[in-house]
Amino acid sequence: MVLWVRYAHDGAEGFGMLEGEAIRVHAGDLFAGATPTEETIARADVALLPPVRPGLFVGLWNNYREAAAKQNLAIPETPLYFLKSPRSVIGPEAPIRPPPSYAGRVIYEGELGLVIGRRVHDVDEDDAAAAIFGLTCVNDVTALDLLNADPSFAQWARAKGCDSFGPIGPAIATGLDWSALRVQVTLNGRMRQDYPCSDMILPPARIVSLLSREMTLEPGDVIACGTSVGALPMRPGMAVEVTIQGIGTLRNVFEGPVGAG
Amino acid sequence: MVLWVRYAHDGAEGFGMLEGEAIRVHAGDLFAGATPTEETIARADVALLPPVRPGLFVGLWNNYREAAAKQNLAIPETPLYFLKSPRSVIGPEAPIRPPPSYAGRVIYEGELGLVIGRRVHDVDEDDAAAAIFGLTCVNDVTALDLLNADPSFAQWARAKGCDSFGPIGPAIATGLDWSALRVQVTLNGRMRQDYPCSDMILPPARIVSLLSREMTLEPGDVIACGTSVGALPMRPGMAVEVTIQGIGTLRNVFEGPVGAG
Repeated sequence: MVLWVRYAHDGAEGFGMLEGEAIRVHAGDLFAGATPTEETIARADVALLPPVRPGLFVGLWNNYREAAAKQNLAIPETPLYFLKSPRSVIGPEAPIRPPPSYAGRVIYEGELGLVIGRRVHDVDEDDAAAAIFGLTCVNDVTALDLLNADPSFAQWARAKGCDSFGPIGPAIATGLDWSALRVQVTLNGRMRQDYPCSDMILPPARIVSLLSREMTLEPGDVIACGTSVGALPMRPGMAVEVTIQGIGTLRNVFEGPVGAG
Repeated sequence: MVLWVRYAHDGAEGFGMLEGEAIRVHAGDLFAGATPTEETIARADVALLPPVRPGLFVGLWNNYREAAAKQNLAIPETPLYFLKSPRSVIGPEAPIRPPPSYAGRVIYEGELGLVIGRRVHDVDEDDAAAAIFGLTCVNDVTALDLLNADPSFAQWARAKGCDSFGPIGPAIATGLDWSALRVQVTLNGRMRQDYPCSDMILPPARIVSLLSREMTLEPGDVIACGTSVGALPMRPGMAVEVTIQGIGTLRNVFEGPVGAG
């Protein structure tokens, strides 16, 4: 298993493998031939960035059996998804800040994120599985009261796409078995979500295969696999941590509306 | 007024100003200091590409008064929008091909497209107007029967985001007065849409200002301003032309499902 991170160090961006408390600096392209350099940097000396900058950021809705049962939703046979603005992406420790014009509820949703490693178009599940470069933690932050603010049009892109509403990281883990993982979310240290990825309705390879039939996926794209029960509103000042063992902990503080006192 | 195009020529991509039947080749970045070279190429010798590759492709719903009245929709005060996958973008003359798995209705929607020229975040309408680099034609192609295929979740991103469902072009026009324009769409030469942009509910500067409050916009982003009445299904082999005087005609052929005979 390898953990890939991106970081800011001395005013420049770089990426590398996380090895304990050190980062082995790499050159090249993460998805097209990364090569190790001689350099290592202490993790403590860098600020981690989003481990990838997705061109396409897909989010699934209704993809866990427990959540579907609780909300009395039918089991979907194809991915039900929205697109999050790539501009929503932030990394570990960056603040979550709703827009100043919005004073409603903002919820966290801890999710498993798939990071695509190669271009796929209309592929079967085997090829789809091979196209998944690795896994990361996603917090699919949502302005809940925007979603249905207009009775005629559900505003998924808007409610999910505000700047800072797409924390991902802290790393991309390769070689993990997704079905053995759990997604855990704490709010100010208190466990609020703790669900097994094996409860997923459409598993990763099927999601990627079905999406690829209609829409080409490219290296660096991120697909958030949906959340399960326990997503709740955050209050300003609260720290939200999404943890998936083997990937790490994605921590962000909800700062409340910009300019709010 | 200037018309900017991108093209493929001798296996390479380039961009420049369209001057009658010639393209004046430019170097640099369209949004950050394009400089003319000595070279011109005959338009007839190139294949036009999408005039821009948007990082974010926003599409508005319910933004024309005539269409709202016809469908008995309330007049929105903020942009109701979805995101189209940037992978949906194609240029003039590229075929529109629905995915092989889809045999339902596919409609054209002729629209005015705004091309963003500078980064904007939380700007007023004056700054928003100044951030609109130019205008282009958009065909917001939609797999109509995917939209409500699932009764629990309207699939805007999916129905609008298939590969080839985002024709834009043929050029980006700068210095045009949007309010004097008409959007005209012909299907196999027969006029099917012909509406004035002045019937728009939320005008361009307001759209950009309101979007920028929640989501940073970047150079090259495209915002399709919504369509009015007259959007209809296409049959395989039909040519669809979106014309906005001053910008040009965006022509694409609907080829029907891939592999269909």
